Amino acid sequence: MSGIWGNNIKVSIFGESHGHGVGIVIDGLPGGIKLDMDYIKYEMDRRKPGKSKLTTSRKEADEVKILSGYFNGKTTGTPLCAFIENTNTRSRDYSKTKDLMRPGHADYTGYMKYNQSNDYRGGGHFSGRLTAPLVFAGSIAKQILEKNNILIGSHISSIYTQVDETFDYVNCNEELVKNLRLEEFPLIDKSKADSMKDIILRAKEEGNSVGGIVETIILNVETGIGSPFFSSIESRISSMMFSIPAIKGIEFGEGFNMAKMKGNESNDEYCIKDGEIRTYTNNNGGILGGISNGMPIVFKCAIKPTPSISMEQRTINIESKEETSLSIEGRHDPCIVPRAIPVIEAGVALTLLDMIIEKKGLEWIN
Amino acid sequence: MSGIWGNNIKVSIFGESHGHGVGIVIDGLPGGIKLDMDYIKYEMDRRKPGKSKLTTSRKEADEVKILSGYFNGKTTGTPLCAFIENTNTRSRDYSKTKDLMRPGHADYTGYMKYNQSNDYRGGGHFSGRLTAPLVFAGSIAKQILEKNNILIGSHISSIYTQVDETFDYVNCNEELVKNLRLEEFPLIDKSKADSMKDIILRAKEEGNSVGGIVETIILNVETGIGSPFFSSIESRISSMMFSIPAIKGIEFGEGFNMAKMKGNESNDEYCIKDGEIRTYTNNNGGILGGISNGMPIVFKCAIKPTPSISMEQRTINIESKEETSLSIEGRHDPCIVPRAIPVIEAGVALTLLDMIIEKKGLEWIN
Amino acid sequence: MSGIWGNNIKVSIFGESHGHGVGIVIDGLPGGIKLDMDYIKYEMDRRKPGKSKLTTSRKEADEVKILSGYFNGKTTGTPLCAFIENTNTRSRDYSKTKDLMRPGHADYTGYMKYNQSNDYRGGGHFSGRLTAPLVFAGSIAKQILEKNNILIGSHISSIYTQVDETFDYVNCNEELVKNLRLEEFPLIDKSKADSMKDIILRAKEEGNSVGGIVETIILNVETGIGSPFFSSIESRISSMMFSIPAIKGIEFGEGFNMAKMKGNESNDEYCIKDGEIRTYTNNNGGILGGISNGMPIVFKCAIKPTPSISMEQRTINIESKEETSLSIEGRHDPCIVPRAIPVIEAGVALTLLDMIIEKKGLEWIN
Amino acid sequence: MSGIWGNNIKVSIFGESHGHGVGIVIDGLPGGIKLDMDYIKYEMDRRKPGKSKLTTSRKEADEVKILSGYFNGKTTGTPLCAFIENTNTRSRDYSKTKDLMRPGHADYTGYMKYNQSNDYRGGGHFSGRLTAPLVFAGSIAKQILEKNNILIGSHISSIYTQVDETFDYVNCNEELVKNLRLEEFPLIDKSKADSMKDIILRAKEEGNSVGGIVETIILNVETGIGSPFFSSIESRISSMMFSIPAIKGIEFGEGFNMAKMKGNESNDEYCIKDGEIRTYTNNNGGILGGISNGMPIVFKCAIKPTPSISMEQRTINIESKEETSLSIEGRHDPCIVPRAIPVIEAGVALTLLDMIIEKKGLEWIN
Repeated sequence: MSGIWGNNIKVSIFGESHGHGVGIVIDGLPGGIKLDMDYIKYEMDRRKPGKSKLTTSRKEADEVKILSGYFNGKTTGTPLCAFIENTNTRSRDYSKTKDLMRPGHADYTGYMKYNQSNDYRGGGHFSGRLTAPLVFAGSIAKQILEKNNILIGSHISSIYTQVDETFDYVNCNEELVKNLRLEEFPLIDKSKADSMKDIILRAKEEGNSVGGIVETIILNVETGIGSPFFSSIESRISSMMFSIPAIKGIEFGEGFNMAKMKGNESNDEYCIKDGEIRTYTNNNGGILGGISNGMPIVFKCAIKPTPSISMEQRTINIESKEETSLSIEGRHDPCIVPRAIPVIEAGVALTLLDMIIEKKGLEWIN
Repeated sequence: MSGIWGNNIKVSIFGESHGHGVGIVIDGLPGGIKLDMDYIKYEMDRRKPGKSKLTTSRKEADEVKILSGYFNGKTTGTPLCAFIENTNTRSRDYSKTKDLMRPGHADYTGYMKYNQSNDYRGGGHFSGRLTAPLVFAGSIAKQILEKNNILIGSHISSIYTQVDETFDYVNCNEELVKNLRLEEFPLIDKSKADSMKDIILRAKEEGNSVGGIVETIILNVETGIGSPFFSSIESRISSMMFSIPAIKGIEFGEGFNMAKMKGNESNDEYCIKDGEIRTYTNNNGGILGGISNGMPIVFKCAIKPTPSISMEQRTINIESKEETSLSIEGRHDPCIVPRAIPVIEAGVALTLLDMIIEKKGLEWIN
Repeated sequence: MSGIWGNNIKVSIFGESHGHGVGIVIDGLPGGIKLDMDYIKYEMDRRKPGKSKLTTSRKEADEVKILSGYFNGKTTGTPLCAFIENTNTRSRDYSKTKDLMRPGHADYTGYMKYNQSNDYRGGGHFSGRLTAPLVFAGSIAKQILEKNNILIGSHISSIYTQVDETFDYVNCNEELVKNLRLEEFPLIDKSKADSMKDIILRAKEEGNSVGGIVETIILNVETGIGSPFFSSIESRISSMMFSIPAIKGIEFGEGFNMAKMKGNESNDEYCIKDGEIRTYTNNNGGILGGISNGMPIVFKCAIKPTPSISMEQRTINIESKEETSLSIEGRHDPCIVPRAIPVIEAGVALTLLDMIIEKKGLEWIN
Repeated sequence: MSGIWGNNIKVSIFGESHGHGVGIVIDGLPGGIKLDMDYIKYEMDRRKPGKSKLTTSRKEADEVKILSGYFNGKTTGTPLCAFIENTNTRSRDYSKTKDLMRPGHADYTGYMKYNQSNDYRGGGHFSGRLTAPLVFAGSIAKQILEKNNILIGSHISSIYTQVDETFDYVNCNEELVKNLRLEEFPLIDKSKADSMKDIILRAKEEGNSVGGIVETIILNVETGIGSPFFSSIESRISSMMFSIPAIKGIEFGEGFNMAKMKGNESNDEYCIKDGEIRTYTNNNGGILGGISNGMPIVFKCAIKPTPSISMEQRTINIESKEETSLSIEGRHDPCIVPRAIPVIEAGVALTLLDMIIEKKGLEWIN
């Protein structure tokens, strides 16, 4: 059941890195939504590989072909299928090493889970390329949310040991959030850019890679979205975030820092501000009892270093069951963090839209 | 949809802290499973309040009455409903302050979400008391897993600033894991116990509370459980963990540390050990591509300080919409971490069982 | 997964005929709904056994105790659990014959499905008694629908070979529909009552039973509820109806008659009536492409004769695997049709409410 | 949520009659299944239009292109997407009449449900053409079932007033069931073929259409598949059958006939036959308490006459809201019954496979 998600808006993703392509079916959108195709293309381009020295040199146009559910410039209300053809595949790169399980990748677990029949070329279905259709779907969700003044923004919170500032969890500036989307390398403190890029390029030169952290904020979510327990905002968002390859940790608000606090430090005391109920601090990241409290929703995702590195690594040959070593050739991102941002935002946009519809119905969209 | 969870084993929780009681319906268990009632009682007692100075003084027997699905000492295979009566409720404690939104609690979000009609007594449905039925269900799942040699163990990784050692992610000792369950205050380095307990008692004296971290390990899960994307092990476990009140962060394996690593440090290289495919390190916490790789599954949960503190806090009156302050009276845990452990284990046991059945079917159980 | 149903309003049923009782958890109701307890009691009484010579002599008060989710006369918005204790159980009746598989019952299939561990007393979880909690939940759904002018009514379309008239599918009278609910033996042509009751009593005297058909109509459902394919109104309603023990067939509108029609007879031509788009006929039962078209929704359910009869029947002993015979003693309905009506209406009310919320959100309710 | 179905094997259908094409994503198949492409093509051809005078003259190759999830002749275990391009579309036929709501079709309900934005060309997403991908998925399920000796067969039970014999519900011949699949016009009593075909051709000449009934039987399902209540075999199969356009009624075993029976006639008494527990009769169609009892599973589906007829019909213009009339031009089936058979079988194969996996797990397949 890997590929189906959602309660009200349901998506079903499919595809492989080096097969025909990757795609998605989105079910549950109401009819009559005009899609801003430039907006979608912009988001797709944010994720697209091959744009700069910081990313893989695999160039993919990532052109989305809508196969169904879209007619005369509007959604029909019936399932919308979008397909992105793979155009720049070099499958030879992979066949040579098909029996060598790449450390940090899903080669071995996919092999075992799927009875030795997984498509091993470039990670197959496990490839980060599967996030392209998710960005497509998320960019529809984001448009819908923005029309309702709900804004999602993210910045690179850290690359390796270099850390950016954090969002202001209480009074986050709307313009800042809007503008982050326009940056290729979004930071709050832009003076950190050179240092971070250096780290990435140095890793690339070493045939190595680096990890990092993305921080995301959502503004203007009304109070009362979400549920306690199994459908808490945290449950829903984390479940989606861990669907994104390479994410290994998530925290909401002050998250792991709260474990080192006392109650009088961690509790967000209430106040009235401009006639609205607000909190002085926002350690809980806008969520109490799994439900939005009207404050910005904030969370951080930890992203591991790209597992594809050209440095020699010890591994095993899955056929011969012998120890051996490999150097991964091919084209890889030395750091996946910048390209992960539109994916994170797409995922959280879908999740939030799904939860809002639960309360407000499909008729809320329009 | 707060209260229903699961794909193969489905549970539905209900109840309030100061109503008739709390309960759970478990649907999908096969018929004919003998339940070890002592095992269940032991797990219930681990979570039970009122056991020591470290916990709330509210005493609850937490006796489980099975209302259906259990006949002649065995599950019938049809829905099993268990109910735990509330016996020690002091609802007066709460009515006085019903309009004062307790910081860090779900009073305000529940009020808004549920059209001002939530049961406000002691947190109502948002109370940690709702985890009692989850422990009941989880202790059935845990029994089933243990019969198949799958072991789950947890320790207190930190209380406030005091840190315990970490599990050995590669060669974790089975006896250690088994024995942790027998400890009231489970630690790897037991010499840390006094210091941690001191911190908790000092917070109690101050009318304050502290947070902490729990680390959990699962041994002997076969390779190939889980799925990529939306049903990844990380997605499923995190979704369940964030159902537990007070958890605000989760990381798998090295988690947030991986964000500070390079690829050659974070990748887990493969080796053959005793004829089995294993990895030298286990930074990925036993999960690659959302699927188990045969190594121990490890994760950490950040738990915020109990929001109920008796120190005076600023808040608002929800009826008058005015700023005011409150001191929370009543009986509260100065630190919820030790009592959260059996809940975390229950949640992860249910999750894992659900994922194993997906692959192996209900007939695997027996 | 027998006991969990629904997309927006989810219910989870549990219990056994001769255990502690039967119950239901309803998840997804918004907070703040005042429940009309007299209305609920009236519906429960419609289904209740022991009211007349036409039904089983087992007397059950069927008093519903609400265990959670209900506070100060209103729903809290969190899961509502209702429990109905079994008070009048004669389990001895069943233990004697526990190894004799009753023809037409689920004794044998339950035994095989649940590893010989099903509760065999009075059909256990398979008992029609499990429909009592469904009537409880449905009577909440029905109240909500009625506040929005959506009316559900049913009559006994046939008992054995005696047939009532049919609803006017095009211009059904609202008063007629409302009044049917007030009848213990609801008919359109009341002159058929004596003949039908005679049939039932004669069957009872013979130690036999009879089947029949129930026809149900729903008025004032707006156009555009439902979906094509897997969530069609027919799919959703039929799925619920076949959850009711003893129903073996369903048809919408002219149903099986349509198979004997030509296209020009079966098509419902459109007209404008009082400014609204309507159809001259309503052979499709108010549903086209799985979606409501504004005409009354009508369907018929075929109900088999109660399988419990006291006439001697051939069967097998499940332990000895030998052929034998049995006469079922105990208290049974000679005809389940009248008592099935409130269950059918409860089921369809829940289904319809669930589909309306999909479009209009939880905020529609109030 | 119209397009997503399933618990263990999930499918997601998409597409329109006159758009790019129609397709399906199948999620949950295990890796390593060899697909018999000839088998699939044979099933697709059974449903394909344009084969004879009895069907629409629209010719479609219905060639399936597998876009993902299939590698080296075997399933990969990750989502399998199949796409069928539309090649023979004459959309002009439809644009002329786009505002004229065709009686018996979903034009009007689709228009209302989807905010006037549905694709109206040839019924758009509501077209019977959407069943092509379902046949593709079902033919995979059928292959898997056949390898486990589970056989599904159907015949035309009636066309208009001409009736075929019925299956022998107790001792149905396996060869008969296997051979039905090889017939273009499957009947038990082949002497009825000419009369039925005459009826269809006469309707065609009149510019009219006719309905009919399909009877389906499933052999060799083990005892204990299915569940009581919401996941009963009847609930699951009926839900799927009513997803197929034009089906308006379903009955299991003797179905509506049982409503005219007495208990001693309808109950299926048990016997031992060849050492197995069987029943003398099979009025319940192989299902008791929602669970298979080892006897053949039998059900009948009522199919309404094709709503597309060229005879003049009264309707309304949806834009002007005025009464008018139309004659539907274009190419249509005078009777959809023969082409519905492979769709019914595909749907029931998927449903049954899904229920078997619930019990036996994915590892059962292979």
